[in-house]
Amino acid sequence: MAQKPSIPKGTRDFSPVEVSKRNHIISIMRKHFERFGYQPIETPSFENSETLMGKYGEEGDRLIFKILNSGDYLDKVPAMELQSIDYKKLTSKISEKALRYDLTVPFARYVVQHQNDIEFPFKRYQIQPVWRADRPQKGRFREFYQCDADVVGSTSLWQEVELVQLYDSVFAEIGLNGVTIKINNRKILSGIAEVIGASDKLIDFTVALDKLDKIGEEGVKREMIEKGISEEALLKVQPLFGFNGTIQEKLEKLAVMLAASDEGKKGIEELRFICNNILQLGLKQATLDLDVTLARGLNYYTGAIFEVSAPEGVTMGSIGGGGRYDDLTGIFGLKNMSGVGISFGLDRIYLVLEELNLFPETVTTATKVLFLNLGESQAFEAMKAVAILRNQNVKAELYPDVAKIDKQFKYAERRQIPFVIKEIVENNFTIKDLISGEQIQVRLEEVVRKLS
Amino acid sequence: MAQKPSIPKGTRDFSPVEVSKRNHIISIMRKHFERFGYQPIETPSFENSETLMGKYGEEGDRLIFKILNSGDYLDKVPAMELQSIDYKKLTSKISEKALRYDLTVPFARYVVQHQNDIEFPFKRYQIQPVWRADRPQKGRFREFYQCDADVVGSTSLWQEVELVQLYDSVFAEIGLNGVTIKINNRKILSGIAEVIGASDKLIDFTVALDKLDKIGEEGVKREMIEKGISEEALLKVQPLFGFNGTIQEKLEKLAVMLAASDEGKKGIEELRFICNNILQLGLKQATLDLDVTLARGLNYYTGAIFEVSAPEGVTMGSIGGGGRYDDLTGIFGLKNMSGVGISFGLDRIYLVLEELNLFPETVTTATKVLFLNLGESQAFEAMKAVAILRNQNVKAELYPDVAKIDKQFKYAERRQIPFVIKEIVENNFTIKDLISGEQIQVRLEEVVRKLS
Repeated sequence: MAQKPSIPKGTRDFSPVEVSKRNHIISIMRKHFERFGYQPIETPSFENSETLMGKYGEEGDRLIFKILNSGDYLDKVPAMELQSIDYKKLTSKISEKALRYDLTVPFARYVVQHQNDIEFPFKRYQIQPVWRADRPQKGRFREFYQCDADVVGSTSLWQEVELVQLYDSVFAEIGLNGVTIKINNRKILSGIAEVIGASDKLIDFTVALDKLDKIGEEGVKREMIEKGISEEALLKVQPLFGFNGTIQEKLEKLAVMLAASDEGKKGIEELRFICNNILQLGLKQATLDLDVTLARGLNYYTGAIFEVSAPEGVTMGSIGGGGRYDDLTGIFGLKNMSGVGISFGLDRIYLVLEELNLFPETVTTATKVLFLNLGESQAFEAMKAVAILRNQNVKAELYPDVAKIDKQFKYAERRQIPFVIKEIVENNFTIKDLISGEQIQVRLEEVVRKLS
Repeated sequence: MAQKPSIPKGTRDFSPVEVSKRNHIISIMRKHFERFGYQPIETPSFENSETLMGKYGEEGDRLIFKILNSGDYLDKVPAMELQSIDYKKLTSKISEKALRYDLTVPFARYVVQHQNDIEFPFKRYQIQPVWRADRPQKGRFREFYQCDADVVGSTSLWQEVELVQLYDSVFAEIGLNGVTIKINNRKILSGIAEVIGASDKLIDFTVALDKLDKIGEEGVKREMIEKGISEEALLKVQPLFGFNGTIQEKLEKLAVMLAASDEGKKGIEELRFICNNILQLGLKQATLDLDVTLARGLNYYTGAIFEVSAPEGVTMGSIGGGGRYDDLTGIFGLKNMSGVGISFGLDRIYLVLEELNLFPETVTTATKVLFLNLGESQAFEAMKAVAILRNQNVKAELYPDVAKIDKQFKYAERRQIPFVIKEIVENNFTIKDLISGEQIQVRLEEVVRKLS
């Protein structure tokens, strides 16, 4: 009784070519993370439910995958209770573990749990899958990798400087030129809300402002008014619409606008330090821009906010983001630990590199040479040569079965193996280049030289 | 209300040093897998339950972690039914997905699902975590990595030859000399059971024989008799106890013992081909041995059976194992696909390398040089130098805060950073070697040269 095999919606199989391309991106990230002094950690795929629940809001709680307890999980649930129970209450009785929803909460848990073994400031990176029971759609999956670099235990703004440099270094080596790293500061947003007398409406205000790209100036104003922000207040934020110029110019405009807000001025000061140092130290390829509409997870960040957008012409949401959160580990009882970090969107970066044809051809793990199998004694000679080639780091294979020559050639072609050894007579190897069609007879040393 | 953070039993956090060491092993495996022509795939962490259930026996089904359906999973379970329902029946109503239990079943599913895109024989490797709700104990975890290389779609015994070479190559590069690769064949075991008239007791017979190491000859015989194997039959297998000599000698003894069994003779023929070729082609460091007591997952393997044991003197179970299974994909409806593969036990290999002190010192990702932070302008000069060093692949960091010098030095020491830049005056860098205590003043170019 055969089953028709499939995988759960929102999940993916990765083919050899896809794995190789993903690993290409990951290995570049890993290299730069380490150069910058971030150290790798890994945490378990599932955490105790109480570690995760309540950390991502109600919506997040709903999207966390819960794991059923092992054994007779109903054992401790009275049958009478079962009949009337609501599923949310039952969940806490039959499930104690849940799949990781992001890497930040497990990182905070890690820091608190291992605080005595950690030297602070602690710079860590983490590249692992996370799971969300979101409705799957184009580019949104139920299992996907997050690639995060964070530092905890330092309020120094040099961290922000360095994180922007890290983005720049990774994207430069990946070959993705023309990305824009947008920066903002929560304190600027608070300052604006303060000076227009809408401090109590900070979230509504920033959520609306964040949509400027999509719904335009009129749309944003309409939404603000709907949320109860006054016409008078809107006049004061008028400069934010069409907020052009260099970073310096923008900072000057903000200084005027926020002169009455201490928090706003603090935000400007922070941004000035970060941007000045980044610009003076220079970036390899990225453009830094100050975007006052940038909000991201506002109820989370307390200082800098980052977002990276793909080069112009590529339609793709942000390919990275991050920011500073002043109380990273407070949820687990360790106070006064400021954290700042960034995340790379692996799936989106992958799609951008595909679209721009930026994966190097050498990225695949394809075999370089196939030895035809002409019977036991030829195969033995081939295996001797294969071992020598592999020791020289040449990917070599013997066709495993004594099949028809045509079939063996077809196999080489379909697997895009560029060279075939047709025959070995003493130390003479007949090697055929399947791309040029050229065929020559050479000694093994020459085969090794040609292929390595 | 702070929570005391912890992780679920049987799971682990990996510290930077541990991740680096694990990655050291994994990257060597990956390199050799690819040299040998195995290509990487990845499959989702969870599969549809019907893909996994029933594939690992009753015990396996019990140990599979099930994921609770999202949303109101009780919606379709009538309240009346809930009161009387048994948890096993309820599970199939409230859970449709389960965490991967091994890499073999997902691989078989992958092959069948993507059969039209695959060139056979298909050599794939896969390095991913698996989850089992086993009782945690020393060396046994609920989340652990499997590292598998398999080929499907070829019955050629060269595959077996190559898999032994692959084990040898990986362990040689890891520096683990003296491993023994034990080989057996299911057909030999069937043949023995046949000639002693105990074909119907094959499993009992091999399970008992497999314990020879632990319970000795008398123990094995006692167990066999308990299982209903006759004294007369035991006389016939007497040569198996104290089965010494070279592989050739063992094969000759088996040829005598199994002269009346066609299956047994086929097993001898297969083993002869595999062992002869391996020995003639030569191994780098491993010893090949024929172990007729080796059974492993017998209801699974149909041909060769492999197991790798750690070097003598290290108390550790097998550090790898595998074999041939003639009907890998039949469970998913694709018949006549023979598979053969091996697995590396990452956790145990890690423990062996630790015990023998075989991890290279360079394996950690530690920072090479720390620039002290003496204030904004010094920090700016430091960051200029840091960028140059990083571009030369030197792991360099600025201490992020203007802290007391003592504290900054202590940080370098605790993080085992070997060099500190104490001061920069124009292009003169005062660099201190924290190991030798030596301190010199050099130009930046000299710092780069010294550290790269």
